[in-house]
Order: sequence, then C-alpha cells, then structure tokens
Amino acid sequence: MLVTPRRPHDLYSVTAFSHPDFTRPQLAAAPEARFVPAPADGVLPEAFFSTTNLPTYVKVGDTWRMPREPRMDSALVLAKDGELWVREGRHVKKGDRVAVGAHEDGSEGIYVHASAFLGDAHGDGEFKFMSSEVSREKPIDYSLMARLLIEERDRGGYPLWVCGPALVHSRARNDMTWFIRNGFVGALLAGNAVAVHDIEASIFGTTLGMTGQGEATQGGHGLHMRAINKVRAAGSIANAVRDGIITDGIMHACVTANVPFVLTGSIRDDGPLPDVVTDALEGQDRMRRHAIKATMAILIATALHAIATGNMLPAFVTESDGSLRELATICVDSSEFVVSKLKDRGTHQAFGVVTNAQDFMHILRLYVERELDQRKLAMPAARDLASAR
Amino acid sequence: MLVTPRRPHDLYSVTAFSHPDFTRPQLAAAPEARFVPAPADGVLPEAFFSTTNLPTYVKVGDTWRMPREPRMDSALVLAKDGELWVREGRHVKKGDRVAVGAHEDGSEGIYVHASAFLGDAHGDGEFKFMSSEVSREKPIDYSLMARLLIEERDRGGYPLWVCGPALVHSRARNDMTWFIRNGFVGALLAGNAVAVHDIEASIFGTTLGMTGQGEATQGGHGLHMRAINKVRAAGSIANAVRDGIITDGIMHACVTANVPFVLTGSIRDDGPLPDVVTDALEGQDRMRRHAIKATMAILIATALHAIATGNMLPAFVTESDGSLRELATICVDSSEFVVSKLKDRGTHQAFGVVTNAQDFMHILRLYVERELDQRKLAMPAARDLASAR
Amino acid sequence: MLVTPRRPHDLYSVTAFSHPDFTRPQLAAAPEARFVPAPADGVLPEAFFSTTNLPTYVKVGDTWRMPREPRMDSALVLAKDGELWVREGRHVKKGDRVAVGAHEDGSEGIYVHASAFLGDAHGDGEFKFMSSEVSREKPIDYSLMARLLIEERDRGGYPLWVCGPALVHSRARNDMTWFIRNGFVGALLAGNAVAVHDIEASIFGTTLGMTGQGEATQGGHGLHMRAINKVRAAGSIANAVRDGIITDGIMHACVTANVPFVLTGSIRDDGPLPDVVTDALEGQDRMRRHAIKATMAILIATALHAIATGNMLPAFVTESDGSLRELATICVDSSEFVVSKLKDRGTHQAFGVVTNAQDFMHILRLYVERELDQRKLAMPAARDLASAR
Amino acid sequence: MLVTPRRPHDLYSVTAFSHPDFTRPQLAAAPEARFVPAPADGVLPEAFFSTTNLPTYVKVGDTWRMPREPRMDSALVLAKDGELWVREGRHVKKGDRVAVGAHEDGSEGIYVHASAFLGDAHGDGEFKFMSSEVSREKPIDYSLMARLLIEERDRGGYPLWVCGPALVHSRARNDMTWFIRNGFVGALLAGNAVAVHDIEASIFGTTLGMTGQGEATQGGHGLHMRAINKVRAAGSIANAVRDGIITDGIMHACVTANVPFVLTGSIRDDGPLPDVVTDALEGQDRMRRHAIKATMAILIATALHAIATGNMLPAFVTESDGSLRELATICVDSSEFVVSKLKDRGTHQAFGVVTNAQDFMHILRLYVERELDQRKLAMPAARDLASAR
Repeated sequence: MLVTPRRPHDLYSVTAFSHPDFTRPQLAAAPEARFVPAPADGVLPEAFFSTTNLPTYVKVGDTWRMPREPRMDSALVLAKDGELWVREGRHVKKGDRVAVGAHEDGSEGIYVHASAFLGDAHGDGEFKFMSSEVSREKPIDYSLMARLLIEERDRGGYPLWVCGPALVHSRARNDMTWFIRNGFVGALLAGNAVAVHDIEASIFGTTLGMTGQGEATQGGHGLHMRAINKVRAAGSIANAVRDGIITDGIMHACVTANVPFVLTGSIRDDGPLPDVVTDALEGQDRMRRHAIKATMAILIATALHAIATGNMLPAFVTESDGSLRELATICVDSSEFVVSKLKDRGTHQAFGVVTNAQDFMHILRLYVERELDQRKLAMPAARDLASAR
Repeated sequence: MLVTPRRPHDLYSVTAFSHPDFTRPQLAAAPEARFVPAPADGVLPEAFFSTTNLPTYVKVGDTWRMPREPRMDSALVLAKDGELWVREGRHVKKGDRVAVGAHEDGSEGIYVHASAFLGDAHGDGEFKFMSSEVSREKPIDYSLMARLLIEERDRGGYPLWVCGPALVHSRARNDMTWFIRNGFVGALLAGNAVAVHDIEASIFGTTLGMTGQGEATQGGHGLHMRAINKVRAAGSIANAVRDGIITDGIMHACVTANVPFVLTGSIRDDGPLPDVVTDALEGQDRMRRHAIKATMAILIATALHAIATGNMLPAFVTESDGSLRELATICVDSSEFVVSKLKDRGTHQAFGVVTNAQDFMHILRLYVERELDQRKLAMPAARDLASAR
Repeated sequence: MLVTPRRPHDLYSVTAFSHPDFTRPQLAAAPEARFVPAPADGVLPEAFFSTTNLPTYVKVGDTWRMPREPRMDSALVLAKDGELWVREGRHVKKGDRVAVGAHEDGSEGIYVHASAFLGDAHGDGEFKFMSSEVSREKPIDYSLMARLLIEERDRGGYPLWVCGPALVHSRARNDMTWFIRNGFVGALLAGNAVAVHDIEASIFGTTLGMTGQGEATQGGHGLHMRAINKVRAAGSIANAVRDGIITDGIMHACVTANVPFVLTGSIRDDGPLPDVVTDALEGQDRMRRHAIKATMAILIATALHAIATGNMLPAFVTESDGSLRELATICVDSSEFVVSKLKDRGTHQAFGVVTNAQDFMHILRLYVERELDQRKLAMPAARDLASAR
Repeated sequence: MLVTPRRPHDLYSVTAFSHPDFTRPQLAAAPEARFVPAPADGVLPEAFFSTTNLPTYVKVGDTWRMPREPRMDSALVLAKDGELWVREGRHVKKGDRVAVGAHEDGSEGIYVHASAFLGDAHGDGEFKFMSSEVSREKPIDYSLMARLLIEERDRGGYPLWVCGPALVHSRARNDMTWFIRNGFVGALLAGNAVAVHDIEASIFGTTLGMTGQGEATQGGHGLHMRAINKVRAAGSIANAVRDGIITDGIMHACVTANVPFVLTGSIRDDGPLPDVVTDALEGQDRMRRHAIKATMAILIATALHAIATGNMLPAFVTESDGSLRELATICVDSSEFVVSKLKDRGTHQAFGVVTNAQDFMHILRLYVERELDQRKLAMPAARDLASAR
C-alpha cells in the first residue's frame, strides 16, 4: 500500500527545499518592489506590506533578495546600506523606507514562497479517514523527535524550549532539568510562574502548595509567595543559586549550565521574580534575540508563550549556504485547541502532540536516552571499521 | 477584499453540483465493474470494493450507474433484477454478486466522485489565519442555519435530529419540543438516556436528580430509575403518554405529533425503556431506514449517535430529478474533538458548531422564529403583488 | 508542613475501613426493611429502594446484612432462600420480594455507609490552591499505580481493563499486549472497534487506514472492513488466531493467554466481528459477570464503556473475611470531562488521570517493569536472609 | 423532594453573611497580631502572613480589624496612621510593618473567615449524581444572571467585565457593545487583541482576516496590522474615534459612553495599540484600581485576564454599613478547564458557565432585555398603586 505524499507541515518534511524559479515569466517580468518612507516613528505607510513567516523574496536592484530576520506581522525595511530587514512596526523610525504592496505573488515585486510549505497539502480529493491535522488519536512518533533533537545538538543547532508551568507542577521538572544539563536546550523561554514553581519545588518540595503526589498542603497557598520573597531578597535567581537557596531544578540547571533563559512577565504574575522582564515589548525583543537564532522549537503546555514565539519565528531555517529547510516546531498540549490556535495564528509548520506535558517529557527523554545508548554501542564498531581501513 | 472560494464542506455550498464527465478518455475507456459471488452469508469476497459516502458510479452494461441507498463501509451488490445496491456486509447472502476493486478512479469500473466534495479545498497555498476547519473561535451563522431548516420544512425535506442527553439535562428540552411540534423534525434518533431524562423531567421535574437550576436533590439519584419503572409498567412511551404519566417534553411531542423516533440501546443504559431497540444491529437497521430518507442532519451533543449516523448517511442528497446536492450536516458539540472525530471517520461534509447544546438550541429557535416572523410580514405584500397582476 | 487528610476517593485510601456501628441508637432502633412483591416481570413496586454502589446494610430478621453483587441503580431482592441480592429491575420477576424505601439512613431498615467513602472530604473550610478533583495539572503517580497492579497480581486479584480504541490507534497496543501476557489483566472489556483496529494492525499494519506514524494510506479507509471480513470468514477471533490470520496484538494475547474478553456492540460498529455481543442487555450481563469479581478497574480512553462499567461496579471490594476496602478505580482520559462525567454518574471512587492513553500505557509499563526489577534484585537477599535463619 | 443546602460558591448564595463570633474562647483569647519591619524595598520579612481573598480579621490594639483593599497573595501592612492595608510585596517599602504568622485560625492574631465561604460544602456524605462543580452538563441560569446584572446597575454597583478576544471574533461584539451602552459595565479589562480585533471589525469588517461568516479573506492576515497602524497614526483609540476611523463596536462604546477600560499588554501582542499598558506591573496596578471597587465580576473567554483579575479580587464585597456579601463572579469558557484552573488558583467563589462566549452573550442580553421589559410593564401598575394610596 502506498503512503500518501507527506504533508508539508508534518515532522517528516524537515528537509531542504528549493528556492522559486525566478526565470518563470511571471517572476521574470515582475517590477521592482516599491518603498515609501514611514510617516512617523512607529507608524507605517498606509499600504505597507505585511509579512508572513514564509520564505519571502523582494526585488531590489533587479535581484530577488530575502530579508534578514524574517517573521510575520511586520514590515520590510530597506536600510540605508541596502540591507533588507523585517522589522516590527513599532521599531520603524520616521523616514525609514518601508515596502508597500498587497500581493504576495511577485506582481508588486514581493514574492512569498508559500507553495513550498502550504502546497498541495490536502487537495488530493481522496476519501480518507483520519485526515484532521491535530488529533489525540494520532500516534506520537517519539523516536523521530528524539532523533531530531540529537541531530540538532550534534550539528550545533539552537533549539528553543518554550514552556508553561504544567511542566513544573508535574514531575516533568526532572526531565526538563536533564535536557538542559545534557545540551539539548539552546534557550528557555518562559514566564514568571515556571520559575516560581520550580523554585518553590526546590525550596519547599511543593508546587502551588501541592506535593509531588498531588496533595494540597496546609498553609501551602503561601509557599510560592515565600519562594518569590527569598529570591527577591537575594536579588536574582543566579544569586539565589550562588547562595544555596535554590539547589536543584530547571532554573538551577540553566544557571549552572549557562543556558540562557528569558522570563517574560504577565499580569497574572505574583512577585515577580527579579529576573522577570515585566515590559511586554522589552520581553518580545529579548525573546526575539533567541528566535532569530532558532533552528528548532519545542513549545510545551503554554498558549501564551507558544503563540508569542510562533509570531516571531520564521517557518524555516536559513542554512549558512543559503539553503532553506523547515524549522521543526513541535507543540505539545493537553488539548487540540491550543495547537489549532497556534496554526490559526499563522504558525502552520507546527506539529501537534496532544498529550499531558509530564508524560511527554518522560517518554521523550526515555527515547533520547535509548537512541544515545544505541549510538554509543554502534560507535566502537564504526571506529573499528575506520581503523581497519 | 475578495472572499476566498467557499470550502466544499461548509454550509454555503449546499448547492447542486455536476455529475462527472464520462466522455473523459479515462472514464470512457474504463472497463466494466467486476462482480464476484459472496462465499457465505455475511462474508464478502476478499477483494470487495469498500464504499464511501460520496457519489459513486459503477459501470454495468456499458452505462455508469449510481447504486441505491449509498453509505460508507459497505459493499456494492448487483441484484438479480439488475438493480445496484449498497449493502452492509452482514446483510449480504451467499452467492450475492459483490463488486470487487481497490481503485476509486474508474480503472476498475467504479468511480468515486470525490473532487466534487473534497476538491481543491485547502491547496491554494496562501498564508492565512483561521484556516482550521473546526474551531470555537469561528462565528456561528445561526441565520443561515435557520433559513436552511425553514427551507427543508417548506419543501417537505426529512431532517434527521440526532441528540445526546445534554439536550435534556439543560433547558434545551423546551426548545427541542418546539422544533418537533413545529414540523422541523423528520425523525429523532437518540438513545435510552435522552428519553429517560426527558421523562424524568416530565414526571419529577429533575434530570439525573438535578433541578433545572443545577442543584442536586436529596434522593435524586433514584428518580430516573423510578421514571423508567413507571414506563415499563405502562408498557411503552406511547402508553405512558396516553395514560397521562408523561405530560410534556420531547418524547411527548414525538408521540402526539407523530414524529417517528428510534431509541437505540447501549451498555450504559439503565432500564431500559420498553421502546429501546437493544440489539445494535437491529438498531442500525432501524436508524438506516430514516438515514436513507434524510435530506439534512443535525447532530447534537453525542459522539456515539452522531458517528453512527454519519456512518450510514451519504454525503449527498439525490433529488427526484437525479441531480445531487450536498447533505447539509451540522454537528454541535462543546469541544472541537467530537466534530473532528466525526470528520476523521469519513463524514467530511459535517459543519462543526462548537458550543453548549442548550445555548445552541435556544438561539437557533430564536432565529427560526425571527425568520418566520419576517416571512409572515413579507407575505401579505407578496400576495398584494400577485393579485395586482 | 502537614499533608491534609487524604481524600477518600484518591488512590492513597485503598485501605480497609470499618463497618458502621450498629449499636448507635439510630441504627439499633431501626425497623426491619420492608419488602413488596414486584407487580410484573421487569417491573418494580412503585416505592422500590434504588441502590447505590456504596456498602449497604439491610435489616432482615433483626440482623444487618449486606446484599450480594452490589451495584447502583438496581433493586434489593430477598430470595426465597433468604439470600439478599442486588438485581437490575429488568431481571426481577413478578412476585419477587423487593425492598422499598426512600431513605438511606437506616430509618426504613436500609443503611448506606456513605460517610466511609464520601465523608468529610472537602468541608475543612480552608483556603487552598489546587483543590479541584480532576485536573491535568496534577502529578500522576505512576509509581503507586505500578505497585497496586503488582499487588493485585500477586494476591490473585481480578483487575478489569476497560479500553477504548485510542489504545490501538496509537502504539499503546504493544504495551497493552505486554500487560495481558504478564498476568496483569483479569478480563478485558471493550467494544468492536478495539478488536477491529487491533486486528487491522496485525493484518495490514494500519489502524483506520493510518500508519503507525500517523499517515493516511491510499485505499486505507477500507482496510478495517477487510480485516472484519477475514475474521467473519474465519468464524471467530479465536479461529482467526488459530488459522494464522491474526498473529500479534491485544486480541491475539487474550486468546493465547486465556484472558477472558467481552466485546460489546454499539450502533457505531462496522461488521461487527463475530465475537461481538450485539444485544446491549446481554452485553451488560456478560460484563457484569466480570464486574462481580473485580478487585480493581482501569478504564482507559472510553466514556461509553467506562460509565457502563462504573454503573455495575461496587465502590468497594469485599474480602473473603468480610472486611471491605475501596475498589481502586483508575480512569484515564485526554480530558477532565470524561472523568468528571464518570464521577457525576456516581462512580465517586474513580481516580482521574488526564493524559494521552498511549503515553499512559507506556509509562505505566515502564514503572511496572522497574518495580519488578527492583523486587527481583531485592528477593535473593530476602532468600539469603531466610536460609540464614 | 428536598433541595440540598446551596453550595456557598454558587450564584444563589449572593447574600449577606455574618462576621465571626469574636467572643468564642478561641478568638477571645487570641494574641495581638505581630508585625515585623520589611528588610528592604519589595522584600517581606521571612515569616510574613500570606493573604487570601477571604474576609480576614487582624487583632490590633485589642480589636479585630479588617484590612483595606483585600486580595490574595499579598502582605498585611500596618501603616503609620494605624490603618491596616493589604499590599503586594513589591509595593512594600523597607521598614513597613508587615504582619507575620502561618496560621489562619486566630492563634497568631489573624483570623481568616473561611467557613463562611468554603464551609460544609461537600461534606454531607450522601450518594449523589452530578456533584462536580463545573460541568457543561449543568443548566445555565440566565434568568438569575440577568437579574443580578440589573440589580447591580440599579444600586450603582461596579461590575467588572474581563474579556478575551473570542468575544470579538464572533458576533458577541454587538451584544457587548449593547451592555456597555446600557450601563451594565463598570469597567472593561482586556488585552490588546480584544481592542485590535474590535477595531479591525469596525474598519475592515473582519477579525483576524475572517469575515463574520467565518470565511478567510485574501490578504486578510494583514488587516489587523493595518488597523493597529491606523490607530498608532491617530495616537490613541479615543483620537481614532474622534477622527471617525473607529465608528462602532466595543471600544467605540467605551469611549463614547465614558466607560473606563484597561488594556494590558502581553508578549503575544501585535503593535500594540497606543493605549496598551505594556508593563505587567503597571498593568496590574491599573487593573487593581478597578478591582478594589468591583461589586461583581464577569470573566469571559480568557484564562490570562480572568486569573489575573481573580488574583486581585476579594471573594466578597464590603457594603458601606460594614456588612459583607459574596462578590458574584461568573466565569464563562468553552471548557471546564479554565474555570477549574481559576478556582484552583484560589478564586473559589467563581461560578462556572461552560459554553461558547458568543452564545453566552447573546442569550444573556436576551434575558436582560426580557427582564427589563417585564419590569417596565410592572412599573406603571406600581405607580398607579402608589398614586391610589
């Protein structure tokens, strides 16, 4: 039996793909892109071109060029030095040259290479079962995800982990710590709550006053406040690690293993911890510094942070040789809704895993450990083979 | 701004569509379909063709013919009188001639007209937001659904209503009763629980022992058992209505308004009520007698009955003149999951409404009433116009 | 910090508990229970006492006695030989003596020992976080569940496994097979779909036409029908195993390891397989034969079968010495809703695990294997110790 | 049949309740509360008392006093003028006198009057169906909610409305506008997205590029960015209303009807609009200015804003005469999860309505309109009666 052509947004398509053929008459005949100065700081010209997260080509000086730092919902800015950037409207200055246009087909000098990703995905007109994109009824290919993670690590990739507090409430905390310590995390993006509950667990052994067995404790509702207060007294999470207040867990691992983290604030935050970036725009800028470098994204149990990150991630990775591949994006949530919402906000490349975050982490780690064991076993043989030559 | 071409499975496409062009070389050159006798009662020949719910054409005697009583997951049987039927495997008798084949493109004499329904649905390769099919974030077009219902009633259609007990727990019971009394229900398909809770509400004013305000009552857990017992003593629901035991509600309306109902049994049933068809196969046969006549389907708050009905419904209605239109299928549930599951089981034409069943019923009735009021207001004018001619 | 008193329905309370104190004035002064003959076959006297799943004591001949085969939503029948039974109304014959009464406090000779289970669960009036009963945010104590399973096996318990098809769609199929083969399954209760997809997987390598990696296959929508047809041709699942048609998986393990299974039918069923009990009442009777023996229940990814089983399970196990302990009932589902619904239908003792069924099975097996390994390691030492004495 | 005592956290209990009896020996003998100076700005003394949202009494100068501006997760500060305040840790200054203590029973001079709210809620030890607190299966009492809203308006209450973008995606926008225009909204708390989609709808007729019928539009993904840009160019939402850019909808109604709104920022925000408070702490402070005045809260389709508001709301209203009543808190969401999460974060008084936000708004408005009509009809009669005296 034939397996149908792989859907572009599933995990199997994490392969290089081709640039468009610019000799096609439609593209060959396209005009130059038009740029108009921004009327004021943080205000775009009326007809500005609104970007997507897909590979985008802009005709400037008779060549098709890709802008740097691609993301959706932003503007194309032609800098004075001729460099082309994707910039959020609020970062555009009065007089900056901003591309205008409403079409993505090249007819206004801007071409969005959508077909590569969104191509002939569903249109095969065949009667099928199980054709929905996100469903708890689909098997989860942990083995593939484990291999992807190991390959990212081995080639020096930069996997973003974006996590919600479910990761800490449950025992996934140990597994996340393991991933950090073992080099699988490029950067951790999260909110105040992840760090608070992780630190509460380190100091008091509870999360939101609940034991590791899920029992509420007497006086437990104040423990996260006490944890916050201790870190505020220490001045920072790093200080609290240094002072022996925080002795294990996710934040401890980030600090001791030098894995960068960004904790962005929200109106739900208690405290907050001193490390939290409370301004949303400053928070976005800090997150984006990591998003620009991302070669993979794992979004776990958070709608807010997942969609925020999805908004600023390109759907693809640009290799150093200019070639492109899809940016593998895994979104884990208990319900189909968060994954569908992420896709509905434009992060089409997201591959949905509908499960409990704790269980996901545990099995993923298990598969990574198994794969590493197998590779270790296979290695001496490979070395023997090499030395025999 | 241009609205994108309507998706074939949304409610807007409830329009006639064309038969395939059989003069196309691929179809013109197709061989006759091949039929093989069934080896035993209820057993199909190995290579049997497994049907879908889409328009299907079988080449017999050099003509392309559509089988009668189409549904998915069944066999094509050529009767002795030359009539072509879709039959569940268990109804096939030893020696019945059953179509064989694995391809749906005509190359084995069987053509499934999938493109009409599943055509170029998604494959436009454009970057878009909100492209998921089923989402609580999509607006619900009650106005359109109200018009569809009224049109079905006015042209003598046969809308199937397939309901779960949420309809009775909540106050939607009154609204459902209104739809039955006012001619909008061709037949009601449900389980024991719908009737039990409806009758409990008529006799005791509670459902599962809960008042209409959601309060549990003392001794309430036994009230549905008492309701069942009373009807068992009376011998049938109709008897209980006649004897004044059941005085209002959904089942009362069905009995007094002569709307047929099928109550199929399940292993969850208490009692059951005497009217319940406890054998699942006999239950399917009874349901299918209505499914064959259906011109519309409204599936509310039930995974079991919705998928069961979806399995036996064609995706289309065959008009008396042989033309086809999509069978409008509305699936209402609190979560996206049930609707997606229904689609994943092959009922692609289902249009999902993600909301609370009680609220759905209340607003739908409101819109139907408004639309009827407006038509009543418009009518005299129309009559004046006619008389003026 | 103090851990709050354990909630009676959580897994930690699987301990023996006391019978009521019948010397309390209220109970000592209670009248004899009153019995009234059933007016007709399958019809109870109007004022019949409706049972619960809790320990129930009936005053007959001046002693408080517990009825045999306890379950909810049924009647108390005093047999001619003086034995007291819990019987579904439909099984009561004309003239059978049925207990009447509306109160559960002994005042009519019937006492329901509710406090033991439902006691002072929540009423401690303390401000707490995380006090909801079922939440995906609660940690899952796999270690405890693994120990419970092993203990049940070691003492010759009878754990019921009640499963939905999610178990087969996903790769949990291997893990379920492992549990069957290793003696952890007393009986398997499921529907047609579980067996169909399991057998489809054995024969074609797909479930609902989807590969183990979640890809739809060409022509895949018919594969489950072909699987069914092959078993229908063979006559039964056992025959198909014998004939080498089914070579692995869940049903294969049940047949070869002599683990009894009951496949009950529903109106959603394709086929069905020859082993399916299509009559819902006959299906309930077959299920109950196992429910009566149950000492533990694991309900996975099925609302229909879980609630059906919950309806017929007592909330407690009666040990051979007459002592009682809670019947550990674990309900696994992707959403809180199914677990809450099960509880709302009276199965208060259910302990909810909100996760993906596939992941649950994988981790549970892992923990059971680890626990067995540890016990094996510990055993020689124990034996040494013993021989040294 | 008896209705069980109302659960304290349901809507029916919005009644006055008593202060504790301070002559009880336990309380009469209680020591004075102890206060310790804060060691630094924004840092609390180690053993600080962590507040709840329940009525709290602090023994100072031999009297039991209630602190002002109660909320959970904060500290009790005794000001120099002897006034007692609830203050977030970050607002505490070095040297401020902060109450210490771990017990809420008065034994350290602090008494939390929990029983009034959380009392004997569940502990009646009776077997019942439908005892879960939040369920889509429970009826929704729109009639009661309509009366509460009208009563709040009539007595000059201050109902907070806290809304997520689902309110705007769907047609609930009209209904929300109606509530604002008709005096039912004390203040609106929301995020950037609510305002952006509302303004997109006013300017372009779409939300997230989707028409009111749920169709994606060509180029639609950029429309919300164009809407934001127009308001940024205008300088503020009020300016954009004044300039005729925004001509209808929710924000238009707030501006023209002088209903205060707070738009707080998040890392998900596009733009943002100029009115958005991007700093999370400044945002909390702005929200709390309204929370302090709140006499009712309606939280619709937002986890983030609902929990943020729940964190800063007392569970009760203090009337001008010092008497207390529960602060009616309605939480509307498509899933039980958000409501349970809100409760699990301590907002126990929340009453859950599990439905689609659009449908909720439509029916609630209908019921309010009906109730107003009935009162209008009743009024002349009342006036006649009065004049007849």
